[in-house]
Amino acid sequence: MSAAALLDALRTALGTAHVLVGTDAAGYLTDQHGRLTGQALAVVRPADTHQVAEVVRLCRQYRTPIVAQGGNTGLMGGATPDTSGQAIVLLLGRLNRIRHIDTDNDTLTVEAGAILANVQQAAREAGRLFALSLGSQGSCTIGGNLATNAGGTQVLRYGNARELTLGLEVVTAEGEIWDGLRGLRKDNTGYALRDLYVGSEGTLGIITAATLKLHPLPAAQQTALLAFASIETALSFLNLARAGFGAGLTAFELLSEAILGLVAQHVPEQPLPLALGHPWYALIELSDSQDDQHARTLFEKVLSQAMEDGIVQDAALAQSSSQHLALWRLRDEALGVAQKRDGGNVKHDISLPISRIPAFLTATAAALQAGFPGVRPVAFGHLGDGNLHYNVSHALSGTAAELFAVEDHIHAIVHDSVHAHAGSISAEHGIGQTKRDLLPRYKSAVELDLMRRLKTAFDPLGLLNPAKILTLDHRP
Amino acid sequence: MSAAALLDALRTALGTAHVLVGTDAAGYLTDQHGRLTGQALAVVRPADTHQVAEVVRLCRQYRTPIVAQGGNTGLMGGATPDTSGQAIVLLLGRLNRIRHIDTDNDTLTVEAGAILANVQQAAREAGRLFALSLGSQGSCTIGGNLATNAGGTQVLRYGNARELTLGLEVVTAEGEIWDGLRGLRKDNTGYALRDLYVGSEGTLGIITAATLKLHPLPAAQQTALLAFASIETALSFLNLARAGFGAGLTAFELLSEAILGLVAQHVPEQPLPLALGHPWYALIELSDSQDDQHARTLFEKVLSQAMEDGIVQDAALAQSSSQHLALWRLRDEALGVAQKRDGGNVKHDISLPISRIPAFLTATAAALQAGFPGVRPVAFGHLGDGNLHYNVSHALSGTAAELFAVEDHIHAIVHDSVHAHAGSISAEHGIGQTKRDLLPRYKSAVELDLMRRLKTAFDPLGLLNPAKILTLDHRP
Repeated sequence: MSAAALLDALRTALGTAHVLVGTDAAGYLTDQHGRLTGQALAVVRPADTHQVAEVVRLCRQYRTPIVAQGGNTGLMGGATPDTSGQAIVLLLGRLNRIRHIDTDNDTLTVEAGAILANVQQAAREAGRLFALSLGSQGSCTIGGNLATNAGGTQVLRYGNARELTLGLEVVTAEGEIWDGLRGLRKDNTGYALRDLYVGSEGTLGIITAATLKLHPLPAAQQTALLAFASIETALSFLNLARAGFGAGLTAFELLSEAILGLVAQHVPEQPLPLALGHPWYALIELSDSQDDQHARTLFEKVLSQAMEDGIVQDAALAQSSSQHLALWRLRDEALGVAQKRDGGNVKHDISLPISRIPAFLTATAAALQAGFPGVRPVAFGHLGDGNLHYNVSHALSGTAAELFAVEDHIHAIVHDSVHAHAGSISAEHGIGQTKRDLLPRYKSAVELDLMRRLKTAFDPLGLLNPAKILTLDHRP
Repeated sequence: MSAAALLDALRTALGTAHVLVGTDAAGYLTDQHGRLTGQALAVVRPADTHQVAEVVRLCRQYRTPIVAQGGNTGLMGGATPDTSGQAIVLLLGRLNRIRHIDTDNDTLTVEAGAILANVQQAAREAGRLFALSLGSQGSCTIGGNLATNAGGTQVLRYGNARELTLGLEVVTAEGEIWDGLRGLRKDNTGYALRDLYVGSEGTLGIITAATLKLHPLPAAQQTALLAFASIETALSFLNLARAGFGAGLTAFELLSEAILGLVAQHVPEQPLPLALGHPWYALIELSDSQDDQHARTLFEKVLSQAMEDGIVQDAALAQSSSQHLALWRLRDEALGVAQKRDGGNVKHDISLPISRIPAFLTATAAALQAGFPGVRPVAFGHLGDGNLHYNVSHALSGTAAELFAVEDHIHAIVHDSVHAHAGSISAEHGIGQTKRDLLPRYKSAVELDLMRRLKTAFDPLGLLNPAKILTLDHRP
């Protein structure tokens, strides 16, 4: 009854075409992995910020939960409603305008539903770099990137999504609009609302637009694949590269021999510029503000010293832009394809203090072997910022329920080891619903209590993306 | 009666020597400018985090407000208690250990009471840069820097204090300890408590320790003083320098002819490497990861193009480290001395979108001339991040009350103009008590309400630095 009244009110506010139900809505109710499927009263498509606010006010009036969704590329189920069918899914996709580009201020103001690749492209056309870069950039939205504080491959130089954000426009749980679209690099006039909304996964407010930092486009880039005898020497080279390239070091992507082996086996069309046989490899990128010649010379200078000192065992430098692109295709596409084709694989998105990565790798591999003899860690990731995608391949068989139990056990072994090494169980993918119930094991009661106070202060009725990140009744 | 009981309990907890009253306490009750003097029940000096927590629990038990204080160098009265004499001033100075330096992870963990210069020095001794740099670094503490999200001269490259912070240890209003001392560059496991505490001026919790980001030490630096015919050409050069130096551009300090004139007049011992007669000057610093020769060549390349294009009128490059230091002395010391010796001067710490600075300068000068014919704007600041110290010299005379009224009127003219140009009325000094009552004029009711919810959620009894940043009963 009241559900019908809400639907009527939504149709009046947005137009019938923008209130989807039944099969029209179905595509928005399953997560990226296809593992979680929820239900919703309707999926709505507001046209602008005022309509978002109107939807929130109506849902509030009818005490109806709201799940905001961008490109639906999240990996933790944060944008998927629960199975009660009570919630409204709010799509931001129609809010996709680039509102303003200011090249003197190096800022870009964009609406939440814009696709990340389109934001990058708009910046590029203005002669600037928008430095957030990640695998799903062709379909994820900037609003989702901000809601999850997305990371990606260039964090070691430019920071996470939060550090690329200067201002926000947010619809609050009361359906009011906070205009915090400031293009200021220094502003100390109160609490860091911007930083709080970024990464809050739609549980504290709905981000509808953002003012983002731009950077100069690099004049030249030099990429290379290097081979290392150990994780320790890879870390030594990271230190050399940080000192020698300064802020020019824009990527340091670690690849284990195991994952390159999967590429060689399952993606034969992908060239591997170095032979297998070294335990670790890394894709290094130097971005240079001068020119190709300078980038090349500087890279070779740091590299030749490292090779002389026995830190690097082998190296293949990209000699052309097509080789540069092929290296990035290896990292961005071939790894994923190889793992998919390889089959069973338990994924982890973790981060560690860089200094503790060697000990973590040793301890975790040992703990996994003890629990599941024969499983194979397949690690890769953004070594420059301590973020590993530590995946575990196994050939275990059993019923679906048995395999889920194995998966949970593997998660527990890896996450316990991460915690013991002062790391994070979610480096860049967030918590959503998938990792929610893990938090009480790894966060203090003090921290969880502070988080609950925030949630209650900003969303007293608990209608914004409920039971994501945390539940209010959940006590460790 | 209960005050006496609290003092007894504090003496038992900390030792009598660390509970100061009367003349021993007096030095901590007046702010940096000597304009605000409060009263306190006592000034206490806990030895460590557990004693800080104990003080907070005791104050909570006795419903007594707590004003945390670091080096007492704040400019907005944030660390000065009110005149009721009810509060306890809590000094962090004894918590001054560097707990840990991790050069592989490029992090440093330090207690809140450590002097900023000592933190810089500890980093330097480990071969690293801690990139927060500001005028009071010899006496301010890192805890105060974090509580106010300090800025300084290197923000355009390294960010504010918040962006240099990876983890925090905080004592909550309940006297619990939140151990958030993480050394992680990617961690998306919940709300951004760290970013919220930074800049909250002791009103949400008391920061007792922090894990900070380190950077590589530059291999070489090239500084220069350049002269510009207009603010527009200074901005053009900023654009060229951002593109040409990339992240190597570590300072772009704007100086008006008016302020250099004051230096020439009042600080004759300070060398001026360029003649007066240009409307604008800037101290530029390039930090280089290669060597002196490379820094010099790169600087000259960008500069010679700019001179050919008529963007730069004159230039003096530092030829030695003593000339480099003399340039920075001009910026860091001589400006302040010159203004002090010049007399009456109404100060503003503002920021603007960089693109709007020219229009702001024109409009504000006109508004000031209309209100107070003969006053003289004396602007300088961190142009690279849009932060101006827009001071207004005047020769007006009158009673103290008349002069305060003039000052308030000048503030209003400047701040209204800042607001009209989408700027901030406090770029890096915070709000404290001095700017608190200005906020309702420049912030939306939505934002103030969100800020009050945060305050109430984290400090339900209102005991942490009450009436700083905002009052709970204050409605616009």
